[in-house]
Amino acid sequence: VPASRILQFQDRPGILDLSWGHPAPSSLPVRPWLAATEASMQRFGPAALGYGYWPGPAPLTEWIGQRLGQTDLRPATSADVFVTAGASHALDLVCALRTSPGDIVLVDTPTYHLAIETIADHDVEIVGVPLDDGFIDPLAVGDVVAAARRAGRRVRLLYLVPTFNNPTGRSLPLERRHALVELARRERITLVEDDTYREMSYAGPAPASLWSLAGDADVIRIGSFAKSVAPGIRLGFINANPDLVGTLSRLGYVNSGGGVNHAAALTMATFGASGAFAEHVKGLRTRYRAQRDALVDALREAVPSLAVPSPDGGWFIWLPLPPGMTAATLLPLAEAAGVSFLPGSMFYVRGDDDSHVRLSFSMLSPSELAVAGHRLGAVIAGQSRRRPG
Amino acid sequence: VPASRILQFQDRPGILDLSWGHPAPSSLPVRPWLAATEASMQRFGPAALGYGYWPGPAPLTEWIGQRLGQTDLRPATSADVFVTAGASHALDLVCALRTSPGDIVLVDTPTYHLAIETIADHDVEIVGVPLDDGFIDPLAVGDVVAAARRAGRRVRLLYLVPTFNNPTGRSLPLERRHALVELARRERITLVEDDTYREMSYAGPAPASLWSLAGDADVIRIGSFAKSVAPGIRLGFINANPDLVGTLSRLGYVNSGGGVNHAAALTMATFGASGAFAEHVKGLRTRYRAQRDALVDALREAVPSLAVPSPDGGWFIWLPLPPGMTAATLLPLAEAAGVSFLPGSMFYVRGDDDSHVRLSFSMLSPSELAVAGHRLGAVIAGQSRRRPG
Repeated sequence: VPASRILQFQDRPGILDLSWGHPAPSSLPVRPWLAATEASMQRFGPAALGYGYWPGPAPLTEWIGQRLGQTDLRPATSADVFVTAGASHALDLVCALRTSPGDIVLVDTPTYHLAIETIADHDVEIVGVPLDDGFIDPLAVGDVVAAARRAGRRVRLLYLVPTFNNPTGRSLPLERRHALVELARRERITLVEDDTYREMSYAGPAPASLWSLAGDADVIRIGSFAKSVAPGIRLGFINANPDLVGTLSRLGYVNSGGGVNHAAALTMATFGASGAFAEHVKGLRTRYRAQRDALVDALREAVPSLAVPSPDGGWFIWLPLPPGMTAATLLPLAEAAGVSFLPGSMFYVRGDDDSHVRLSFSMLSPSELAVAGHRLGAVIAGQSRRRPG
Repeated sequence: VPASRILQFQDRPGILDLSWGHPAPSSLPVRPWLAATEASMQRFGPAALGYGYWPGPAPLTEWIGQRLGQTDLRPATSADVFVTAGASHALDLVCALRTSPGDIVLVDTPTYHLAIETIADHDVEIVGVPLDDGFIDPLAVGDVVAAARRAGRRVRLLYLVPTFNNPTGRSLPLERRHALVELARRERITLVEDDTYREMSYAGPAPASLWSLAGDADVIRIGSFAKSVAPGIRLGFINANPDLVGTLSRLGYVNSGGGVNHAAALTMATFGASGAFAEHVKGLRTRYRAQRDALVDALREAVPSLAVPSPDGGWFIWLPLPPGMTAATLLPLAEAAGVSFLPGSMFYVRGDDDSHVRLSFSMLSPSELAVAGHRLGAVIAGQSRRRPG
């Protein structure tokens, strides 16, 4: 069996590919996860393989709640947690429960391109939110909501990645978080907070989540173990009010099949409780910090005039191209030079802004990233020089 | 942590509970599954934990196709298979893709009660099909479809469990299968064949699936490893035409998260290829045959006048109560005598037939099942005697 039909990732010989938001294979905890599987089987016995408790087994939902107490402003309780088969599954569930065909769903600008696809599968109209100073503008969002409602449209969800955003790597400032929560409360919209990258923080604790600041506003936080442990285990969670957790637990297919990824959930509970998770994440932070720096340093060295951001967390550099240059024109030149990326236009609902590229530093080693940064920098510098006065 | 928040199953002291369609804990392959996990990690390394190939990894989709060649009329190819997180997840996906709110969805009479819930989550109207001689009547179904369409309604799916049915344990006769496939072709409706119990056959091979007989009719087969391996691993599959497999693979949330249960899928591929699956299923057949016989024998002994069916496969006995007795009136008396079950009315869309009870023989030992059968039989016999004339 060729590797290409086991994983999504497709190797392109000769290309250092910065387009995949996937973990470095060597970072995946193959042996620790196997050890946790064995310990879980020993601890729970046949209960590790039975029909699981609807919202996820208590050992995991309780551990998640406690862990959030260390990585966020406040902990959750197990009544606030529903275990999902990954963050993408969580978003799909939220859309299934909280949208109807024809609704408007607001999304961050720019935003995670595959979230756009996931939301679009629910036959809704997706509208990017207006920005102010590069961040979501709560007042302007209020105007968009009001105008849509005057036109008879239903607007119930706003999806965003406020912390170590995909693709920008940036985090929403605290005052904007408060303003957004206030908007949600006032306009009775639900904030769907994709918090996938919280554990991937490289400069101290991640910012307080919207969920932690919500008060009586409706915030649904989506969490994931795809970045902090492994994508292939398909584990994430929804952290929301107990009503939503109850609604999810009563879904027909959850009632029929039990907890949506029971055996993996108990392994994760064991991996967490043993301290192996905290140890692993510590190592990942060191690793990804070094990978980020390798790519940032190479780009800054190759094109000193370029404003290369160095994100405090996550897996991505959102690189602004020199004025007049588009990602679409850069891509074939970059690939000819042996490096690739995703064009910025992919992260906009209408694809109308192609002034940036998204560079993932998650998958390659520091030395590969240094080469990739120099290759890409050389192409950008060469194109800039060719541009008339 | 009390066991009650790890599993769905809730123990009721003093009651031999025949209501759960769950495997016997002692039947779950804890050690063999752990060994397969270890072998999979060794064989695939980090690829066991990465973002998985969209329709499921080729080692599993190919093995499933081959296995069907041994348990069904013909094998499938890997292009016909999409790996799901269980059969319930598969049914939910099919409904999400193939129904719109307001559609009519036809279901078998009686049918799996939690499938009714799963389908109902999609805001459709569910209609039980008419029967003839105790089995689905294809001609009458054609009339139902025609009448609904004349009334401007859309009818696209017919869900059924044709093989070792839940709750009846019965299998649709071959000539009805052919007639049903012909109806599906003629009326352009899709048969959703829940084939969860195929491996649980106790009297020779299971009947040919609707999928294997389909020709150019549209049949979506749903398969599961919940009964043949373990529910907690959350693995099943959709076996359908490559177009549907492609559509599933292109779902936003599958594109975002990769194969929906990647690590477990590779463990299953290893469990299958090693021969451990075939060996395990062989043991299960012996076990469940003995469990079935223990319950059937006890019931026949306790109430000789009762027509106790002995199914050729699956996990359930669909027990007809004496004339005039309903499951609802029997249930409290049975529980007072230390035995429980699910009333037959739960398996009808309108709940209007309560003349049977569903007895699961999957979870208890032969000796417990013998006691349960005698307890239930004694209550039924006692009630029958009390009945006037």
